Amino acid sequence: MPLPSEFHELAKRVNNWGRWGGDDEIGTLNLITDAVVREAAETVTSGRRIPLALPLQQDGVQTGVIPGRVNPLHTMVAINVEFFGPGTVATSDDVVTMGLQAGTHWDGLAHVSHSGRLYNGRPADSVTAHGRAAFSGVEKAGHIVSRGVLLDVARALGVDRLDGGHAVTPEDLEAAEELAGVRVRSGDIALVRTGQIQLYLGGDKQAYAYPSPGFSIRAPEWFHARDVAAVANDTLTFEIFPPEIENLWMPVHALDLVEMGMPQGQNWNLEALSEACAEQRRYAFLLAAMPEPFVGGTGTPVAPVAVL
Amino acid sequence: MPLPSEFHELAKRVNNWGRWGGDDEIGTLNLITDAVVREAAETVTSGRRIPLALPLQQDGVQTGVIPGRVNPLHTMVAINVEFFGPGTVATSDDVVTMGLQAGTHWDGLAHVSHSGRLYNGRPADSVTAHGRAAFSGVEKAGHIVSRGVLLDVARALGVDRLDGGHAVTPEDLEAAEELAGVRVRSGDIALVRTGQIQLYLGGDKQAYAYPSPGFSIRAPEWFHARDVAAVANDTLTFEIFPPEIENLWMPVHALDLVEMGMPQGQNWNLEALSEACAEQRRYAFLLAAMPEPFVGGTGTPVAPVAVL
Amino acid sequence: MPLPSEFHELAKRVNNWGRWGGDDEIGTLNLITDAVVREAAETVTSGRRIPLALPLQQDGVQTGVIPGRVNPLHTMVAINVEFFGPGTVATSDDVVTMGLQAGTHWDGLAHVSHSGRLYNGRPADSVTAHGRAAFSGVEKAGHIVSRGVLLDVARALGVDRLDGGHAVTPEDLEAAEELAGVRVRSGDIALVRTGQIQLYLGGDKQAYAYPSPGFSIRAPEWFHARDVAAVANDTLTFEIFPPEIENLWMPVHALDLVEMGMPQGQNWNLEALSEACAEQRRYAFLLAAMPEPFVGGTGTPVAPVAVL
Amino acid sequence: MPLPSEFHELAKRVNNWGRWGGDDEIGTLNLITDAVVREAAETVTSGRRIPLALPLQQDGVQTGVIPGRVNPLHTMVAINVEFFGPGTVATSDDVVTMGLQAGTHWDGLAHVSHSGRLYNGRPADSVTAHGRAAFSGVEKAGHIVSRGVLLDVARALGVDRLDGGHAVTPEDLEAAEELAGVRVRSGDIALVRTGQIQLYLGGDKQAYAYPSPGFSIRAPEWFHARDVAAVANDTLTFEIFPPEIENLWMPVHALDLVEMGMPQGQNWNLEALSEACAEQRRYAFLLAAMPEPFVGGTGTPVAPVAVL
Repeated sequence: MPLPSEFHELAKRVNNWGRWGGDDEIGTLNLITDAVVREAAETVTSGRRIPLALPLQQDGVQTGVIPGRVNPLHTMVAINVEFFGPGTVATSDDVVTMGLQAGTHWDGLAHVSHSGRLYNGRPADSVTAHGRAAFSGVEKAGHIVSRGVLLDVARALGVDRLDGGHAVTPEDLEAAEELAGVRVRSGDIALVRTGQIQLYLGGDKQAYAYPSPGFSIRAPEWFHARDVAAVANDTLTFEIFPPEIENLWMPVHALDLVEMGMPQGQNWNLEALSEACAEQRRYAFLLAAMPEPFVGGTGTPVAPVAVL
Repeated sequence: MPLPSEFHELAKRVNNWGRWGGDDEIGTLNLITDAVVREAAETVTSGRRIPLALPLQQDGVQTGVIPGRVNPLHTMVAINVEFFGPGTVATSDDVVTMGLQAGTHWDGLAHVSHSGRLYNGRPADSVTAHGRAAFSGVEKAGHIVSRGVLLDVARALGVDRLDGGHAVTPEDLEAAEELAGVRVRSGDIALVRTGQIQLYLGGDKQAYAYPSPGFSIRAPEWFHARDVAAVANDTLTFEIFPPEIENLWMPVHALDLVEMGMPQGQNWNLEALSEACAEQRRYAFLLAAMPEPFVGGTGTPVAPVAVL
Repeated sequence: MPLPSEFHELAKRVNNWGRWGGDDEIGTLNLITDAVVREAAETVTSGRRIPLALPLQQDGVQTGVIPGRVNPLHTMVAINVEFFGPGTVATSDDVVTMGLQAGTHWDGLAHVSHSGRLYNGRPADSVTAHGRAAFSGVEKAGHIVSRGVLLDVARALGVDRLDGGHAVTPEDLEAAEELAGVRVRSGDIALVRTGQIQLYLGGDKQAYAYPSPGFSIRAPEWFHARDVAAVANDTLTFEIFPPEIENLWMPVHALDLVEMGMPQGQNWNLEALSEACAEQRRYAFLLAAMPEPFVGGTGTPVAPVAVL
Repeated sequence: MPLPSEFHELAKRVNNWGRWGGDDEIGTLNLITDAVVREAAETVTSGRRIPLALPLQQDGVQTGVIPGRVNPLHTMVAINVEFFGPGTVATSDDVVTMGLQAGTHWDGLAHVSHSGRLYNGRPADSVTAHGRAAFSGVEKAGHIVSRGVLLDVARALGVDRLDGGHAVTPEDLEAAEELAGVRVRSGDIALVRTGQIQLYLGGDKQAYAYPSPGFSIRAPEWFHARDVAAVANDTLTFEIFPPEIENLWMPVHALDLVEMGMPQGQNWNLEALSEACAEQRRYAFLLAAMPEPFVGGTGTPVAPVAVL
């Protein structure tokens, strides 16, 4: 089942290989310049902070369908232990085992390959068990702080949440932009709200997983045209399930990560942000969404915060 | 070996129990008001971002001395797997097992207890194996964004790094404040540089661990007077080893976390920040240092970023 | 909801505290004497070996209902790595994260407590996060090899498998003994087959979990009378679900582990053994079922083998 | 650094590919016939059981030199939790993260490859991150019970333990056989004692790791001639360190696992067994050493027991 010609044509149009040099490992994050960050800081008017991460717990969003992507198993290794003798200060300590993409996360650029290639033409087999991602590991991303723009597609389309299977198109994104009253520009991080995460928050993780709205195969071209630095949404996989085009699975991953070199965020809880933006009638803000620097990581948990 | 009267007197002077109500679980993070954050955003002049986390890898700072606080074991569960058939988009996925305080981290308020009590008088035994921290878990902290101030004690004292065993006193902190040309104020996050982390960066993790500079038992009172929201440094345990007062172990943990309810950061790499601040002759900046929201966590990895 | 008087009366009748001294940590395993093992070896006539463990894999028997008892997450840390240079011998290496009681396992004596006590009157709070089980950890059990006797209750009652909720009574056990043509005696390990594991083997792990046959509260007294060293069955929890007596949960665990000090095995696959015993018309054999010596473990995976 | 011709000649002489058919995945374990097991059971005269596994604990034999092969991190997920309400039976539950070859273990046949091949000519790349070992995974081994023979080389050579770097040769093995008064034959499991593990038991795990006695490159041919089913010893890696032949690393692994298809055991504590055999002047016994059935495992913890 090779990828169809439609995919390859889109791939050509959004391809960024070589754009920041043959050695580049961070792709569109290069678009976050100091100037972009300065302007992002200027958007802060109220000082209100809205965290966007889901709680990390064993009862997380994973259902077992994605093999090995386990919800956090978080256990205590010490509880009030008086290591220095009875009556001394006591400490508690904990450990976790989890899929790096189990909860609210960034996909790193090495998370997917197609046709044997990663972003910037790196060979797919440069990802190994003992070394993990030799190129474009999440530790390379360093520091993701930029202007965030909420593209509240659900609100723009007048629904609480988009239907399962809904394809978020460029037209949808522009409707959200119009609602926002702000034009997405180079270096921005677009947060695209479908409302799908309400299903998880309401206790139905199966319904959250499937069927799901997600990005149309046409969306990456729009992101490329606007030169966004990254995109996140409020779904489990970012993609539409069932797929927009029969038998074409995860095309947006391949276009975003491999061709454009653009990180993707998933399982971001945009509900409170949606309320806040609607109340304040402003949709641009400072966004800090730092990857945990796992060396060679193909993804990473992230605890993003929007500062309005 | 009960805690000495000197400790108990200091404890009384810095105690914040009840200050934000009997139900409060976040302590001095209450001091980060919207106004503080607005002013923090205003400090951004260059847009330069400096990440402060150490890479997360098996060869991390832990030496095995702290039982169970294991360095990250990061493995691949899928490498370029074509889940939807040959020739389709391929995905890689990874998992980690690690101590939540193994690398650059925040101590949550439930990390230590003394005399059977946690912050705000909660019973120490409210930390359990299956529930973890019932009160003041790191997920409660939500969003740590504030003004950061680098207190570069090593530079202020004219040394590359402080000696092992050096007690960072209020006088040292004020020398660093003078160098910084900025007065630490309510809601600030103080980043206190000793230079100790150079030993780890240079490859000697045993020397990094011991002997180590750290905070004098007198420092918490200074933090309390200035009403800082949090303090982080560039050492393994925050404390002085060997201890400042014989047989008094981890007094600063007990004063900061239990009495004041003030989060502590450890293993923060402040070397690049020190260079940047010295170059730009400015020591205050926007700091984003979001806890990963582990439900009931007594600590959390953090990937802090200073935005200058 | 205190334990009812019926429970306490049974507890008194099966109690073994002090029987092997106040310091004893292995309970009924003391009954496996050298003579018992010699006789067990004499039962070997064919040399046929039948393994009784379920495969260890992520798709194991756990459904998430028992918090933290995670199925094995088994990942590679090295795949054909030529550590000593290109062309040299290459090695692969793997790691696992799993609940010690996730698959085919022994419950250690410290797995349950009631009324604040463990086996032999030890305080329940001697189990801690950092030290785990201070008394009766599974590493103390050392070496479990004895005569095994299959009590094939399902076959004796003429059914493929017992119904969910069926209480295995002393009468059932004696019917199985009659079928076996062998009397259970001191030091034996009784393997009690309900057939319930067929549901898991057939792909329905929810049905395997609930409803389930298990041991009647009257069974422990029979085990006590026969002085068996250990008992294992082919169910998820050993107990009847829904419970035999309303609101009395896990009474058999409390009687077996706490009062008698008798290890329990769960998730043992007795299907092939049932066929073999029926074919050979013999139900006693050499059983080796060695605990993995986790220091302070309250349970342990086991890969038992019956040698006929 | 290709493998030298000396290696390739030995490889040819011990090669078992195709011997048990092209589909075979268990190699020399085929030699353990029912008759072998029957005779093994007949060796039991005293009923005495001697366990051969090291305790599983964080302070295990691993020093960090083998990347990712982590000592067991064993933590509690529940401690005396009354899941069904106050006063009900309370349960404790634990989990572990560990390298499958961290402690006393079997190397599975898929643990090493050379020249792109595994045992029986299978391609090395059939080991993958998501599937692990597609061929010869440790779950295939099923049930390892056979006659064990202690070849106590240290005792035969009149030393407490062999020197670091000592190559255990066929001549050494025959000296031990003579001491044992028993000839190793087809299907036996040879336990070869060097005494090296005394260093670990005495607290010096660095010395245990290096330098180490191990098998001469000539030993596999002897094992092949005797048609043993498996071999275990009391060292960290089975091999000699520093190597017997300069720049030829792990040749015995390649000969045993890849060419012969013979499992290897490491970190087996043979000290108590050595005492018992010397006392009883008998060196053959029933050995049960069941692999934990990790699906696709390249190694497995094992808790072996010798029954004398």
